[in-house]
Amino acid sequence: MPVALDAMGGDNAPEEIVRGAVTAYRDHGVPVVLTGVEERLGDVGGLAVVGCTEEIGMAEEPASAVRRKKDSSLVRAAELVRDSKACAMVSAGNTGAAMVSALLRIGRIKGIYRPAIATPIPNLVRNPTVMLDSGANAECSPAMLAQFAVMGALFSRARYGVERPRVALLSIGEESGKGTSVVQEAHRMLEAVGAREFEFAGNVEGRDLMKGTVDVVVTDGFTGNVALKSLEGSLKFFIETLTGVVITNDETKSAGGVLFEYLAPVMEALDPDNVGGAMLLGVDGICVISHGSSSAKAIASALRVARDLAATSLLDELRASADPEVGAAKH
Amino acid sequence: MPVALDAMGGDNAPEEIVRGAVTAYRDHGVPVVLTGVEERLGDVGGLAVVGCTEEIGMAEEPASAVRRKKDSSLVRAAELVRDSKACAMVSAGNTGAAMVSALLRIGRIKGIYRPAIATPIPNLVRNPTVMLDSGANAECSPAMLAQFAVMGALFSRARYGVERPRVALLSIGEESGKGTSVVQEAHRMLEAVGAREFEFAGNVEGRDLMKGTVDVVVTDGFTGNVALKSLEGSLKFFIETLTGVVITNDETKSAGGVLFEYLAPVMEALDPDNVGGAMLLGVDGICVISHGSSSAKAIASALRVARDLAATSLLDELRASADPEVGAAKH
Repeated sequence: MPVALDAMGGDNAPEEIVRGAVTAYRDHGVPVVLTGVEERLGDVGGLAVVGCTEEIGMAEEPASAVRRKKDSSLVRAAELVRDSKACAMVSAGNTGAAMVSALLRIGRIKGIYRPAIATPIPNLVRNPTVMLDSGANAECSPAMLAQFAVMGALFSRARYGVERPRVALLSIGEESGKGTSVVQEAHRMLEAVGAREFEFAGNVEGRDLMKGTVDVVVTDGFTGNVALKSLEGSLKFFIETLTGVVITNDETKSAGGVLFEYLAPVMEALDPDNVGGAMLLGVDGICVISHGSSSAKAIASALRVARDLAATSLLDELRASADPEVGAAKH
Repeated sequence: MPVALDAMGGDNAPEEIVRGAVTAYRDHGVPVVLTGVEERLGDVGGLAVVGCTEEIGMAEEPASAVRRKKDSSLVRAAELVRDSKACAMVSAGNTGAAMVSALLRIGRIKGIYRPAIATPIPNLVRNPTVMLDSGANAECSPAMLAQFAVMGALFSRARYGVERPRVALLSIGEESGKGTSVVQEAHRMLEAVGAREFEFAGNVEGRDLMKGTVDVVVTDGFTGNVALKSLEGSLKFFIETLTGVVITNDETKSAGGVLFEYLAPVMEALDPDNVGGAMLLGVDGICVISHGSSSAKAIASALRVARDLAATSLLDELRASADPEVGAAKH
């Protein structure tokens, strides 16, 4: 089954998105079906297209846009997954609208309170640290956070092959008594749940997110989003600063050239384009959400991740983890 | 009046702390009174010392440590401010204990709900962006956030001379409807308050913290602490990565040397040692809290900031802003 790709979603849609799809198919054998306004897609390199008449803008209010634009590329992509005509969906468009489309068309996994966005944060030590929720739910209960931990652990295993993921809770100090009352209660729940589902590594702080010491970091969508954007902002700041220094004069340009040879692999490892996008965990289908500014390379990477995840037992495991009856039978 | 300095507080106490005090006095004429265990202070360069017998460790539980250790360097420093024997206090020790000491010995300003930690985040464009609360109150009401905005604006004016500070609310999107219910309500309150006290710049996101587009960023102590440590962590990560590349071989070392000449002023501008520490706003005295890892240079900088702030009308303005009667008379 192909991966459904929202060809109209993203800052550089549809050109860059279509290019990414063609690359994914040609270079990596990923079958793709594009959803989009046909006359605007250009050369799709022979890929299948499901035509539609509407698109949802990056700044539109998600819930009303999805309800109103029934023939949008995003809604059509979700429907392909719902109708078993695609094994997964990928969008670089309006994140909130992608969530709402997936929720309304594909639906929640039974027993999951709320889907969460799981974002891989790269490091230089080992597999990325998956942070969830990174923006779907601004307010979370302790039980939601505990469920995020289980979903994140299953995702880390399916995506990176981590047998027994180390899962941590984001707080403002290592001690279990630190943080809000919700975080403190979540800490107690994770101590109980962790023993059987994953290794609970206790609390981590903002400064630990890029250290690669844990596989999963659990937090509410407000804190997670702020933390993620703080990291992005400071890395961008540093790269711009370094670039500004390098272009000062001929001497600095030449010095920059020498260092760049060694910095390039590091920047490649950290490049969000290579990480493959975030995943919406908790909906009953594989849904990969790429950065709005995704390049063709980022889209190709997201399509591969979506295809690979669809081939794992991740969805079955998520369903089993959330179903109270299966849970009771298992333990 | 001298500035009271907790000589036993900090990872490098007391040696580094005392060195900082001596530098501040010798090079910048800041009068300092040290509180500490006299036989451990070494050469204090003729500075006044208030001897004590106890010290509070970095990992001690703040409230119980302050209650139990009545003759600790931190509590003694706060008492010097209370008794008008010092114009301000500075500590690089246990942040929670510094807060509790200030609250119990100096007291809250009448009408202030809760004190907040205001941390300057440096940028390359203009005066630092002051973020508060960066760790004192994990949970905050909308009214507390609105009060933080006023305190932050007054601080930005006193510290950096910004006539009409631009104050923003930290959220997960620019639109007023983004964020938790507390953040949404705070947004409404800031729109109302901002018109007269400062310029309300709306919401900012994590990626904006180092851009220098606003003077004050308001958030709860949980989110603020996570954001600040995320920034610290990623900057540390980048500097370590760059250093690692530079020391690869002779060629990279020489290239690094060329660039360093131009990077040095940037790193100097961003160096937390030069920022002068965070300020506990809302207690009835000037209380500067330095990073636990403070060097002598950072302590000297914090002492200068404390002395300078004590010479402004900041405390009077904070009192006036929080007193409902004064507020009513003013508007």
